[in-house]
Amino acid sequence: MTKHKLKVIPLGGMKEIGKNITVFEYRDDIVILDCGLTFPEDEMLGIDIVIPDISYLVKNRKKIRGLVITHGHEDHIGGIPYLLKRINVPIYGTKLTLGLLENKLKEHKLGDVDLNVVNYGDIVKLGKMEVEFIKVTHSIPDSAAIALKTPVGTVIHTGDFKVDFTPIAGNSIDLNRLAEYGSKGVLLLMSDSTNADRPGYAMSEKTVGDTFNNLFVKYNDSRIIIATFASNVHRIQQIIYAAENHGRKVILSGRSMLNVMGTAKELGYLDVKEDTIIDIRDMHKYDPSELVIITTGSQGEPLSALTRIAFGEHRKIELHPDDLVILSANPIPGNEKAVTRVINALMESGNKVIYKSLSEIHVSGHACQEELKLIHSIVKPQYFLPAHGETMHLISHAKLSMDLGMPEENIFIVENGDVLEFGGKGVTHGSPVESGNILVDGLGIGDVGNIVLRDRKHLSEDGLIVVVVTISKKDGKIIAGPDIISRGFVYVRESGDLMDEARNVVKGVLDDCEAKHITDWGTLKNNVKDSLRTFIFAEIKRNPMILPIIMEV
Amino acid sequence: MTKHKLKVIPLGGMKEIGKNITVFEYRDDIVILDCGLTFPEDEMLGIDIVIPDISYLVKNRKKIRGLVITHGHEDHIGGIPYLLKRINVPIYGTKLTLGLLENKLKEHKLGDVDLNVVNYGDIVKLGKMEVEFIKVTHSIPDSAAIALKTPVGTVIHTGDFKVDFTPIAGNSIDLNRLAEYGSKGVLLLMSDSTNADRPGYAMSEKTVGDTFNNLFVKYNDSRIIIATFASNVHRIQQIIYAAENHGRKVILSGRSMLNVMGTAKELGYLDVKEDTIIDIRDMHKYDPSELVIITTGSQGEPLSALTRIAFGEHRKIELHPDDLVILSANPIPGNEKAVTRVINALMESGNKVIYKSLSEIHVSGHACQEELKLIHSIVKPQYFLPAHGETMHLISHAKLSMDLGMPEENIFIVENGDVLEFGGKGVTHGSPVESGNILVDGLGIGDVGNIVLRDRKHLSEDGLIVVVVTISKKDGKIIAGPDIISRGFVYVRESGDLMDEARNVVKGVLDDCEAKHITDWGTLKNNVKDSLRTFIFAEIKRNPMILPIIMEV
Repeated sequence: MTKHKLKVIPLGGMKEIGKNITVFEYRDDIVILDCGLTFPEDEMLGIDIVIPDISYLVKNRKKIRGLVITHGHEDHIGGIPYLLKRINVPIYGTKLTLGLLENKLKEHKLGDVDLNVVNYGDIVKLGKMEVEFIKVTHSIPDSAAIALKTPVGTVIHTGDFKVDFTPIAGNSIDLNRLAEYGSKGVLLLMSDSTNADRPGYAMSEKTVGDTFNNLFVKYNDSRIIIATFASNVHRIQQIIYAAENHGRKVILSGRSMLNVMGTAKELGYLDVKEDTIIDIRDMHKYDPSELVIITTGSQGEPLSALTRIAFGEHRKIELHPDDLVILSANPIPGNEKAVTRVINALMESGNKVIYKSLSEIHVSGHACQEELKLIHSIVKPQYFLPAHGETMHLISHAKLSMDLGMPEENIFIVENGDVLEFGGKGVTHGSPVESGNILVDGLGIGDVGNIVLRDRKHLSEDGLIVVVVTISKKDGKIIAGPDIISRGFVYVRESGDLMDEARNVVKGVLDDCEAKHITDWGTLKNNVKDSLRTFIFAEIKRNPMILPIIMEV
Repeated sequence: MTKHKLKVIPLGGMKEIGKNITVFEYRDDIVILDCGLTFPEDEMLGIDIVIPDISYLVKNRKKIRGLVITHGHEDHIGGIPYLLKRINVPIYGTKLTLGLLENKLKEHKLGDVDLNVVNYGDIVKLGKMEVEFIKVTHSIPDSAAIALKTPVGTVIHTGDFKVDFTPIAGNSIDLNRLAEYGSKGVLLLMSDSTNADRPGYAMSEKTVGDTFNNLFVKYNDSRIIIATFASNVHRIQQIIYAAENHGRKVILSGRSMLNVMGTAKELGYLDVKEDTIIDIRDMHKYDPSELVIITTGSQGEPLSALTRIAFGEHRKIELHPDDLVILSANPIPGNEKAVTRVINALMESGNKVIYKSLSEIHVSGHACQEELKLIHSIVKPQYFLPAHGETMHLISHAKLSMDLGMPEENIFIVENGDVLEFGGKGVTHGSPVESGNILVDGLGIGDVGNIVLRDRKHLSEDGLIVVVVTISKKDGKIIAGPDIISRGFVYVRESGDLMDEARNVVKGVLDDCEAKHITDWGTLKNNVKDSLRTFIFAEIKRNPMILPIIMEV
């Protein structure tokens, strides 16, 4: 036993605790778990992606022994290029995970990265800590749970997982290895809470394959277009099997689909006959009933292949009314309307569309309540830290753990940046470390803050009025203007021009200021702003942003 | 039989066909069915509500014999004040429907409206057409289907409905009357398609009452806060029954909750003991375990009572950690994230929250597939026009009707504004009439169009740069500026000030123009805009709106 402490810090993941990045620290050693990105919330206007604040790691760069990755989804690897631009760290992950990461590093033109392929069961020594990768099932192959052995005790982090006893390729989740750790004694369990409020089990990926086969029989004469997540290699494998069984060729469409499948095929994760996948340019050589198109766009993303197909804007794929379109994914919360829009467009073209209400064409990649209970029961942790979820999910997960007998005081509901210290007598809370969300807009990283977002919101709802006037330096008299320009704002009244009247209001204010010898620009601008705002709100109950500009000559 | 035709025109409802307003026209008579509003889509930035374009009715005002309302929901009555401001028409509806409409007319300061209360079974003569109101069950009392008898044949329009055999108050849906019409012969069925892609039956409203009673027993010691739709009188009735059974007082919170319940109580639609509902100011007189608060905000609306309670911003209701909060509603598509945000906030305060994944605390008010089949089977229409749904729902409904034996050519999937003409030999399509969506922003009705929305979107994503310069009328020389002001846009670089460089770019352009004797303002502005856009995009890959303003003195 050691007198030193193990710090556990879920460092980032927007609203989901520890989703994007978690830090383990023992004395002078730091192990980082995952480094992902999040897609922006609705109110983050104009933002492309959100990455975690890694100031804490930059400050403690000398302690970092390695970055360990659980699997190849964006929310677990998408932040790595931004991290590597600030600190170079050795990276450990399974083969497919690192293959997908390499694509990303190429895009960011990052060379010279220390990538280490790890097999399940391998032990990686990182300072005084050791990491073992344990096989789990999830919606991407090569996913891993992590056993972190430290002088204070062992931490099991499930990563993203489900318990799929009949996976499409490879073995099932390695429950035996998790049970062995459980028997030896586990200090802390950190576990995926995404579906902690869903009763029962997540269905096996295999059930979707049965649905595909039935649909391929039923729609024997139609071309079939299937949209799904590019990273869901098992799903795409099942489509390929169905295609081969029914004598169809497969066309891949969408940039990320081609990227991920290229990597998956090259690394041996795709079981496909030599001539099954054909180039889109050879599509015309086949009868529509001999084709399956697998495409991105299952979330209704505006620029995705499926959306372009649906709206007749795809350069190479033209919709026929007798195509069958399958959306093999559920809308992620927030995407419901975009998905509905695409389904409507497809149906308006006369197409048959299969989506979630109609058929079993998607299963979740995250464990539901009975699976979570199984993991808790075999890992038998002393403490529990629900991770990967918003507050509502973490609390459901905590409740589930209490139902299994975990004392409430051994469960920790924390925020990103919170520090839990294990060792000695029980667990203490350290001072929180710097954490948060960095907004990336174009090439700008972290320069868009609250004021900018507030202004964008105001502009988006109410538009803008710019008032410009040139006044004389000598006597404050108006030399030119006031001119009024508006954008995102307009008002047509049956009689009288609102903008003419607005100009008179501004003129009145400025004349008044001149008479009172007010020359301070700040006061002038405020007076113009206030009068114009009051006038416009009284007239038409709107509140555009008002930007007064005064030039002096 | 007549040689004249009956025109059926689903006139408005944004994406949902005929949801907000439908027009029936026979020779010189027009009957309007409902006149509602829609809430704006995400991309309609800054818009408050959307109302249907009624130009066609204004042009044909002399023909209008009456406006018939099926029920009192916003999407069926919310557009009436805007219609009445342009044309005065007699209005027919059941007691509660007109009671709710009256509140709305008061808000809009509209007097002198010809309101006519109708009972189920009453026949209203409107020119050469007759309307009978038929009882249906829905998530608001006093809902009606409409039988429209015309010289060409009878149209049955279900309005919004479900088949609830055990409603909370009053009788069930009048299947017998619908069947009588079916036996006599129905020309056309128009029917609610909202849930046409959901198999099975919508559960009875009564099942929710059982859940409430169980929760009231289980959380006997807690104050209970329940959020639901203000118009769902039956739901609120069940909460009141549960409260009375368990010796609790009821507090109503939220403006629309107080409005609707006031009307419902006054008109006798609420069965409640004299002292059950108490004023919020008397809350302190009771133990928390003696109280139920019924509130608005089940959709996570930012200004609603529940949201303010959740974020500690409600003036009168402060959350205790042992309050039980129940969200007795499902998120309407598009509201999922807002609802999750509120649930997270409540759970962070330590509250137990019951929402849809956890318990049966909501049922839909719209018929699912088996209920729709029942209606089709007893009404036995010659033709079918699926209404009240987006394309995907209409097509599911059409398919259901075909499964029941309706020939495909007797089913019409139409757009708002399309005209179907019945009579003579079969059905023909007339030329579409003017229709569409009028955006209401503040007091402005229809003045916000595509350009304004496009500008608002641009501003919201990329912000704005204003460039102002004062030049001399004589020689085009710069007298003041260029000044650069930005909003919703900022860029911090590690070295060099982007705005300083931008100013130099503009100065360079203007000097260049002066040297070339370019004095045309349009050209000057375009040159400034283009150079600045190119410079900024090259530097930081962003594309703010650029607004050059030139003043001449």
